[in-house]
Amino acid sequence: MTHSIAIIGASGYTGAELIRIIATHPSFEITALAANSKAGQSMSTVFPHLRHLDLPELVRWDQIDYAQIDLCFCALPHKTSQEVIGALPRDLKIVDLSADFRLRDPLQYQAWYGNPHLAPDLQAEAVYGLTEFYRSQIASARLVAGTGCNAATGQYMLRPLIQNRVIGLNDIILDLKCAVSGAGRSLKENLLHAELSEGYNAYAVGGTHRHLGEFDQEFSALAGEDVKIQFTPHLVPANRGILATGYVTGNGHDVHAALSAAYGSEPFIEMLPFGQTPSTHHVRGSNFCHIGVVADRLPGRSIIVAALDNLTKGSSGQAVQNANLMLGEDETAGLLMVPCFP
Amino acid sequence: MTHSIAIIGASGYTGAELIRIIATHPSFEITALAANSKAGQSMSTVFPHLRHLDLPELVRWDQIDYAQIDLCFCALPHKTSQEVIGALPRDLKIVDLSADFRLRDPLQYQAWYGNPHLAPDLQAEAVYGLTEFYRSQIASARLVAGTGCNAATGQYMLRPLIQNRVIGLNDIILDLKCAVSGAGRSLKENLLHAELSEGYNAYAVGGTHRHLGEFDQEFSALAGEDVKIQFTPHLVPANRGILATGYVTGNGHDVHAALSAAYGSEPFIEMLPFGQTPSTHHVRGSNFCHIGVVADRLPGRSIIVAALDNLTKGSSGQAVQNANLMLGEDETAGLLMVPCFP
Amino acid sequence: MTHSIAIIGASGYTGAELIRIIATHPSFEITALAANSKAGQSMSTVFPHLRHLDLPELVRWDQIDYAQIDLCFCALPHKTSQEVIGALPRDLKIVDLSADFRLRDPLQYQAWYGNPHLAPDLQAEAVYGLTEFYRSQIASARLVAGTGCNAATGQYMLRPLIQNRVIGLNDIILDLKCAVSGAGRSLKENLLHAELSEGYNAYAVGGTHRHLGEFDQEFSALAGEDVKIQFTPHLVPANRGILATGYVTGNGHDVHAALSAAYGSEPFIEMLPFGQTPSTHHVRGSNFCHIGVVADRLPGRSIIVAALDNLTKGSSGQAVQNANLMLGEDETAGLLMVPCFP
Amino acid sequence: MTHSIAIIGASGYTGAELIRIIATHPSFEITALAANSKAGQSMSTVFPHLRHLDLPELVRWDQIDYAQIDLCFCALPHKTSQEVIGALPRDLKIVDLSADFRLRDPLQYQAWYGNPHLAPDLQAEAVYGLTEFYRSQIASARLVAGTGCNAATGQYMLRPLIQNRVIGLNDIILDLKCAVSGAGRSLKENLLHAELSEGYNAYAVGGTHRHLGEFDQEFSALAGEDVKIQFTPHLVPANRGILATGYVTGNGHDVHAALSAAYGSEPFIEMLPFGQTPSTHHVRGSNFCHIGVVADRLPGRSIIVAALDNLTKGSSGQAVQNANLMLGEDETAGLLMVPCFP
Repeated sequence: MTHSIAIIGASGYTGAELIRIIATHPSFEITALAANSKAGQSMSTVFPHLRHLDLPELVRWDQIDYAQIDLCFCALPHKTSQEVIGALPRDLKIVDLSADFRLRDPLQYQAWYGNPHLAPDLQAEAVYGLTEFYRSQIASARLVAGTGCNAATGQYMLRPLIQNRVIGLNDIILDLKCAVSGAGRSLKENLLHAELSEGYNAYAVGGTHRHLGEFDQEFSALAGEDVKIQFTPHLVPANRGILATGYVTGNGHDVHAALSAAYGSEPFIEMLPFGQTPSTHHVRGSNFCHIGVVADRLPGRSIIVAALDNLTKGSSGQAVQNANLMLGEDETAGLLMVPCFP
Repeated sequence: MTHSIAIIGASGYTGAELIRIIATHPSFEITALAANSKAGQSMSTVFPHLRHLDLPELVRWDQIDYAQIDLCFCALPHKTSQEVIGALPRDLKIVDLSADFRLRDPLQYQAWYGNPHLAPDLQAEAVYGLTEFYRSQIASARLVAGTGCNAATGQYMLRPLIQNRVIGLNDIILDLKCAVSGAGRSLKENLLHAELSEGYNAYAVGGTHRHLGEFDQEFSALAGEDVKIQFTPHLVPANRGILATGYVTGNGHDVHAALSAAYGSEPFIEMLPFGQTPSTHHVRGSNFCHIGVVADRLPGRSIIVAALDNLTKGSSGQAVQNANLMLGEDETAGLLMVPCFP
Repeated sequence: MTHSIAIIGASGYTGAELIRIIATHPSFEITALAANSKAGQSMSTVFPHLRHLDLPELVRWDQIDYAQIDLCFCALPHKTSQEVIGALPRDLKIVDLSADFRLRDPLQYQAWYGNPHLAPDLQAEAVYGLTEFYRSQIASARLVAGTGCNAATGQYMLRPLIQNRVIGLNDIILDLKCAVSGAGRSLKENLLHAELSEGYNAYAVGGTHRHLGEFDQEFSALAGEDVKIQFTPHLVPANRGILATGYVTGNGHDVHAALSAAYGSEPFIEMLPFGQTPSTHHVRGSNFCHIGVVADRLPGRSIIVAALDNLTKGSSGQAVQNANLMLGEDETAGLLMVPCFP
Repeated sequence: MTHSIAIIGASGYTGAELIRIIATHPSFEITALAANSKAGQSMSTVFPHLRHLDLPELVRWDQIDYAQIDLCFCALPHKTSQEVIGALPRDLKIVDLSADFRLRDPLQYQAWYGNPHLAPDLQAEAVYGLTEFYRSQIASARLVAGTGCNAATGQYMLRPLIQNRVIGLNDIILDLKCAVSGAGRSLKENLLHAELSEGYNAYAVGGTHRHLGEFDQEFSALAGEDVKIQFTPHLVPANRGILATGYVTGNGHDVHAALSAAYGSEPFIEMLPFGQTPSTHHVRGSNFCHIGVVADRLPGRSIIVAALDNLTKGSSGQAVQNANLMLGEDETAGLLMVPCFP
């Protein structure tokens, strides 16, 4: 059975990545593409790498006939997303890739994003889209909120450890290195090749990155108490990839065992042998997440390193994985492409 | 029907790319992987990006039971390849990715590669693997010689123009820019990140690059007279991609028309609208080749720019395309992955 | 003796490069920095790599007291530059880095840049700033027009050959590969790291790049007849560097001899031994230009490859070299920094 | 007064960087260059970016007449370095860039480097070369041991804080991101452009990196008690640069104040305003180190970020700074080149 798919916000990187994945998906067919600022243009103009595909022309999102759509991906900026989704039919299946429905508490949303939420009812309805941990709710959800790409990486590393109390909860430090596509196709000076290539830096230092809202919400819920981690993202000169280095207190072998137990049957999470750590290059362009654990020379401390592709497992791949569940397809359908190395 | 596939030379980049493609191929199954220098190792050690795949362990090529193999890819260095293929069963279907069977004339082989050919009978048997132009011969071939990656790019640009005499044959200049994976996984100083990143240069300048042997052979055969082009490759700081800029005499619109006519129904060759030129980023990781034509301000001169991924359309993707034909499968099977941009 | 220096347009890459060079110049002192859009800001905000320097705050260009200035560098966009320089004192020594005074013929200026020239008297007064060929005029000039970075590279390669008729004048092809800083600090989609890294492409194909106006003017004047070359620039994923590959008819040894004779005593132009060609990495961050010559396998044809740093020898280094001459200093003062490799 | 300088181990990156700096040093003159494996070659062959310099040919280190040498830089691999320096005249001033004389305790040396030290007397004589903290001893030293590049970065960030007990000593975490030239010009698979570009990873995870020996030695001496930090280096796809992110307990403003007090009059250490953090791009090719401090959202925790160029301030620039002191020159002589941005 073929599902009719719409993408709103198709002119950004996550939109392009959705199309890249869906183009070879066995049962998804793209029937509508929207990007208000580029309505009327062809996708081959906006993204020449898609020129061989027979794709519908870009339209405004309100020009789509949603009655014909089985599932809609929404890849808009936060704040815009809640406006648009608020105006879409209430029976339309939606996977939202923005930040708008990740936080369940309207006050937390406002605290992290600076504006009051315009669709708190949808916020309540939305299921958090970290597939491996919300699988059954996602399968029956109408509206799924894709996670932050950094938030996904950190949670893959830490959720089983927090849940099983394998590590201390008061001194978790997450040092994350993110490639530039995580910032989207926005015209900012620091995203220019001339500024970024041969340069790298920390940003949002000190606990101001918005994905901390997701960590706080999820980790505290898991632990049944307030858990607040330290989180420092860095921008590195690469196009795709997140490498997260976690510093925790806890026995290395216990940490490795807990993660291995949690992910033993997961199709997309690969545990490396104890003592090995991953590289972003080895997950590039794929839906896989590689995780490694090392015991530090200081007794009782461990280092965990996780790698995934921010555009795929961190965003559009996760979105398709959730859509598969929502539409009753095999969860891995369309998502088994091998990492593109070198 | 599933075909049993072996890969000899699986520890290099073209070997890894074959596995990347075949892993999601609907009817190919990898049953043997050989790499003499790494026999006994697992592929996940040699290429960690393949760790999620259930692949056979690396063996020596003489340990494979070829009676069980439907088709064998051979991704060895030239000279080694002719030795190995010479020792394989004579009824085994083989796609060779080396340079050993590209040149039909043993003297030309010796002139360009410096050593006498050890298997001239196989050289005579081999079919040149530029799919779009040798399709029927490939379909019935036992041994197919994959083309040089630069040679493929230049021929896509020039064959229809030479065949149809749309351009002058005495002043064809091909200025080619190749990414670093074209040099393979060899440990050479100039391939180090520290040497290549932020640097680029010409090499094999003056007509010494071995792929010229293929150009001479193919273009002269097409024209029915001696055709010798100028060809200068350059190494640029990127991992994948070939961008070839061709300078020819001939009317731009005629050039565009001839190429458009030649490739109108080809699944992997995309002609850009007249006046537009491609980028390597838009074919990255895919089996597509994009070609654009511009008329120069000087009357009667045209510029053609072609882009493809050296590891895919220039090598392993081409090899799978040929294997599809040899095994009676759809020519595009397993090869429709969308370019990985950004 | 210390010369008081002003820089107008100090917030762009060529402005920053001027400051980088002048900061260690033995007799230049920066006393004023202007950038209208960032007036009031400190240079360490605009360019944090300059934070250790004791630099004046950015002002508007009309706030500078030019009576205190010995020489002014003007690093504004073209068109703006002619307006500003038209309003500056007519006895102020100026090195302009824009395109506004490179073309001596107002009609040619209008043809290439699309707008009528607003200061044709200054256009007539300006000396073309290709130091090695206009040395004595520059030394006595009041207003010097810095050359285009591509135009400089091509001229270093070709002027001695055209002047001495060592090569044919009707079939000169220049294929140029330029790093991204040549496009300035402008916010354009194709200059983003995510778009450019791992991608490269031709642009302004077919003879539309404005630096062709300089080639036409200079080569025709040298030859005493109309000379029009083919010129195709390419954008490559690197921050600094121009590599130009020239295809000419002419004997390789004659070509090498003519260039060697022309540059034998030049401090910044390095001829490589016959048969060798340069890399951009080996001139990075320096004022040197490396040139190599190879004879093609086709008799009577030669390939010339030249490399320089577009921001230094192609722009700000050239500007300081000219300023040294205009102020009676040693031509190499402040310019002998060694290329920054790796 | 001109000092006659020899460099042993001139064919590696730190050797090339020494030459880059010394070429424009006002009072140093290179009179001998040694590299045993490349003896007899010219430096322009080994490093084409140095071709404009009039440098002595490479010789074997035992061919140098040390009686004519005022100071010798030794840029050999560890273990080789102690053999060579052990054989040099005992009155020759030496700045060693290897790891051989950084650790004062022979047992610690053996523990970290795996081999017994062959010159324990020289080990005792050597002064640790972190200029800002060993200035007077260096000025009167005969043999100075250059620090590890990672070790320098971490110490600039942490020494004043440990010494002044501004931070807790039991939970210091240093997450460091190093560019590839730190690994030298060695032919290793993971240093290839094709492997590293678009990929990044942790290495020596868990406290096995040898620079920890220096941290242990120096921090424990400063504190008067055993101090052991956690240290995880990462390899990122850039040529030059170290970015170190430190996680400490301590008040952010106190941390910033302590560092500002320590470095207020240092010529090469730049403190950023509180709340700002540096980028490696802004110190590239220079001898500067930029340090920033941010208070975390979690009370009592601070993040410190330091950036320097591993080849300059982390190695060869530091070496020249020390040589200046040893020869009675201004400490900053030859070292004020501005970072090469972009």
